[in-house]
Amino acid sequence: MASLFLRTPGPSQSLPKTQKAHFVLPQNLPLSWRSKYRTEPAAAAAVRIRCGLIEPDGGKLVELVVEEPQRDLKRRQALSLPQIKLSKIDIQWVHVLSEGWASPLKGFMRESEFLQTLHFNSLRLGDGSVVNMSVPIVLAIDDSNKNNIGDSSSVALVDDKDNPIAILNDVEIYKHNKEERTARTWGTTAPGLPYAEQAITHAGNWLIGGDLEVIEPIKYHDGLDRFRLSPAELRDEFTRRNADAVFAFQLRNPVHNGHALLMTDTRRRLLEMGYKNPVLLLHPLGGYTKADDVPLEWRMKQHEMVLEDGVLDPETTVVSIFPSPMHYAGPTEVQWHAKARINAGANFYIVGRDPAGMGHPLEKRDLYDADHGKKVLSMAPGLERLNILPFKVAAYDKTQNGMAFFDPSRPQDFLFISGTKMRALAKNKESPPDGFMCPGGWKVLVDYYDSLTPSENGRVPEPVPV
Amino acid sequence: MASLFLRTPGPSQSLPKTQKAHFVLPQNLPLSWRSKYRTEPAAAAAVRIRCGLIEPDGGKLVELVVEEPQRDLKRRQALSLPQIKLSKIDIQWVHVLSEGWASPLKGFMRESEFLQTLHFNSLRLGDGSVVNMSVPIVLAIDDSNKNNIGDSSSVALVDDKDNPIAILNDVEIYKHNKEERTARTWGTTAPGLPYAEQAITHAGNWLIGGDLEVIEPIKYHDGLDRFRLSPAELRDEFTRRNADAVFAFQLRNPVHNGHALLMTDTRRRLLEMGYKNPVLLLHPLGGYTKADDVPLEWRMKQHEMVLEDGVLDPETTVVSIFPSPMHYAGPTEVQWHAKARINAGANFYIVGRDPAGMGHPLEKRDLYDADHGKKVLSMAPGLERLNILPFKVAAYDKTQNGMAFFDPSRPQDFLFISGTKMRALAKNKESPPDGFMCPGGWKVLVDYYDSLTPSENGRVPEPVPV
Repeated sequence: MASLFLRTPGPSQSLPKTQKAHFVLPQNLPLSWRSKYRTEPAAAAAVRIRCGLIEPDGGKLVELVVEEPQRDLKRRQALSLPQIKLSKIDIQWVHVLSEGWASPLKGFMRESEFLQTLHFNSLRLGDGSVVNMSVPIVLAIDDSNKNNIGDSSSVALVDDKDNPIAILNDVEIYKHNKEERTARTWGTTAPGLPYAEQAITHAGNWLIGGDLEVIEPIKYHDGLDRFRLSPAELRDEFTRRNADAVFAFQLRNPVHNGHALLMTDTRRRLLEMGYKNPVLLLHPLGGYTKADDVPLEWRMKQHEMVLEDGVLDPETTVVSIFPSPMHYAGPTEVQWHAKARINAGANFYIVGRDPAGMGHPLEKRDLYDADHGKKVLSMAPGLERLNILPFKVAAYDKTQNGMAFFDPSRPQDFLFISGTKMRALAKNKESPPDGFMCPGGWKVLVDYYDSLTPSENGRVPEPVPV
Repeated sequence: MASLFLRTPGPSQSLPKTQKAHFVLPQNLPLSWRSKYRTEPAAAAAVRIRCGLIEPDGGKLVELVVEEPQRDLKRRQALSLPQIKLSKIDIQWVHVLSEGWASPLKGFMRESEFLQTLHFNSLRLGDGSVVNMSVPIVLAIDDSNKNNIGDSSSVALVDDKDNPIAILNDVEIYKHNKEERTARTWGTTAPGLPYAEQAITHAGNWLIGGDLEVIEPIKYHDGLDRFRLSPAELRDEFTRRNADAVFAFQLRNPVHNGHALLMTDTRRRLLEMGYKNPVLLLHPLGGYTKADDVPLEWRMKQHEMVLEDGVLDPETTVVSIFPSPMHYAGPTEVQWHAKARINAGANFYIVGRDPAGMGHPLEKRDLYDADHGKKVLSMAPGLERLNILPFKVAAYDKTQNGMAFFDPSRPQDFLFISGTKMRALAKNKESPPDGFMCPGGWKVLVDYYDSLTPSENGRVPEPVPV
């Protein structure tokens, strides 16, 4: 893989205490950026002393994997407990929780957290402070699970081969109102929402919350585990690089030169604002995605080719996999994507058009207004410390034979290459215009579509721009 | 009407500045009540100096009715503007906004307020503070309205006879995504939600927000206007009575002796806590209700009879009409009901089982979990200053021939009289057990059902307990 793909760093990297704190507001920050910037002086001072990066939600990064010496004990304990079998998506959520992406959550949500998430997209902590939490992280069980658990206060969570993955303690079982959960999370109950079909519709009628003890780090053994850095590992890496700003770019699609332009331009703007060493977290989502998205392994191959092409500087770019499953819940989900990156140390978040959006399952329209994601994100409770960077629109500039920011004064010069167009080209093994994507990256896409037999549901999956 | 029905007070009642501030936390407040009590010392001091009652949301009660000398000018101005015709429910919302029940809202929501309401049930103000706002207060218009408005920054809002009601200034027009609005407000999109059928499904595809100038106070000329006290008038009245605690009781149904027991018991508890003069705001909802609720005029007659019966003390009770329409949106709506009462000066709010709930429109179950209303209310952003008083369950105690708090140690002694049972009794002109409701109040109910011709849709509306 390309050199800027980062390997998991060693276990002990000390944190320099003297570096410039990233959250000191440069004096030339434009007003539109400043409006989101409300760090409390006392909190900022505390962060500066501790590590120099933005503080995790709740003040401390949650880590739920038990220490090596206790693991055998916990495995034996799990054997004596009532068992719940986890789905692949459940295990991805255990992974997310175990590494503190959802800090300060310490396990699957109990009812009070579930209700706050559905109604307020945020949680109030014991000290009265508020953290963002927009997507329910819950574990569904059915009647027989519930009967089996009985009065036990702990349960074992096991994989499909009955290997214990984690223990859930001080459990609380409450009703799983699927209709209400879906309506409040997606703003629709239309059948055909991919995550709902996969993880809700056929799930049990109860939810079980509690505190997690995860027996060992979650691994997938798919050749990509080394790219799955935890928030703690990412923080160590940003600190090692002396980052004074970390800007996160969430993606679940192939990278084209418009994305690259945006990322390099963001770095340029941060340098202009007075930051000395802004670092990019290029952070493809690695959990569940819908069938017509390009699978993670192909995306990682494509990213590798694009990055080898040299448009991004390895010194200032960290590529890692974000383990969360995808909800496709638009303005609700983009908050989760942003919040999780705070926990990984990012204090700038790039948000595009219609983030985490998709077409309406039944109607011929996008499910969400394309601007609602960035508007909701900019107003979301608990994200006041994060600087939101709205995505500029990039298109193919025919006068320059390359991707450029769209200039509304000369629209005739620009070509918008839609997902449909990109799919048709890749499927037909044709080439996009020079400069749309590097040839190596494009070849990966062509190979991916080539690998699909047309008999697979009779349809070819369609790549969708981020 | 009974003497404790309060008439609108005179225009000038000065506020005593020396009275005991209600929000000083009595030392004997039980822990379960204390947990909701988080007044910031600085803010509390400011309130104490200003009026002695809980401060309105945003610090100042919004009042949008233009002064008498400007009214003719505004009427003439309205004639020159593009016009939007208001429905009855729209006018009720103009009423709500005009008197500051929704303070600090100054008019129908613009998109940023609408989005915050749908996603966060709260609004962030310019100073970073948060107020609760759970129900969208929006005005829908159709394509022809929108075309007619064109680039005009102001529009006139008129009634069904084209009389100008208000002017909406600095307007913003944005999309009315009815499905998303409904899903996020009710947690379902099932057809048959009364408010949605009445005010959303057939409404226009655009919403128009802006700042309201209401030309004169909204009146209904139904003989009940004198009971429609504004938040400012209620605050004056509580101040005149030297209230050091105001506890609000929202209702939309006939009052039985269980309710009366609850209200007198709440007063007793507040006195025990150290308050010297707790005043009850008995606050029936006066706006739109669904067809099978008992209409406002019959409820007011019933309340009068119950109150004449003497179970509540006129000296410590204020009866007034809350002008809001009813959403039947359960945990979402109960926040609105509570928040509006803060603006009217209440610092204690009584919440019952399944507040603002109803049956699921399609399924044989309640739409909301009966406990979610009080749970959501107790965690809601912007309501931290309000003390939530959970409703104790009252039932008919056969050993005492009267309503009493249910004692789980002797369930056999209690009779639960459901809405269905009450309806069947009233419809058949039978009497409930002695002590369930005073005879005068019961007679009003019997008369009401008697007044309905059975041919009205072939069904008799059913009163539902609060």
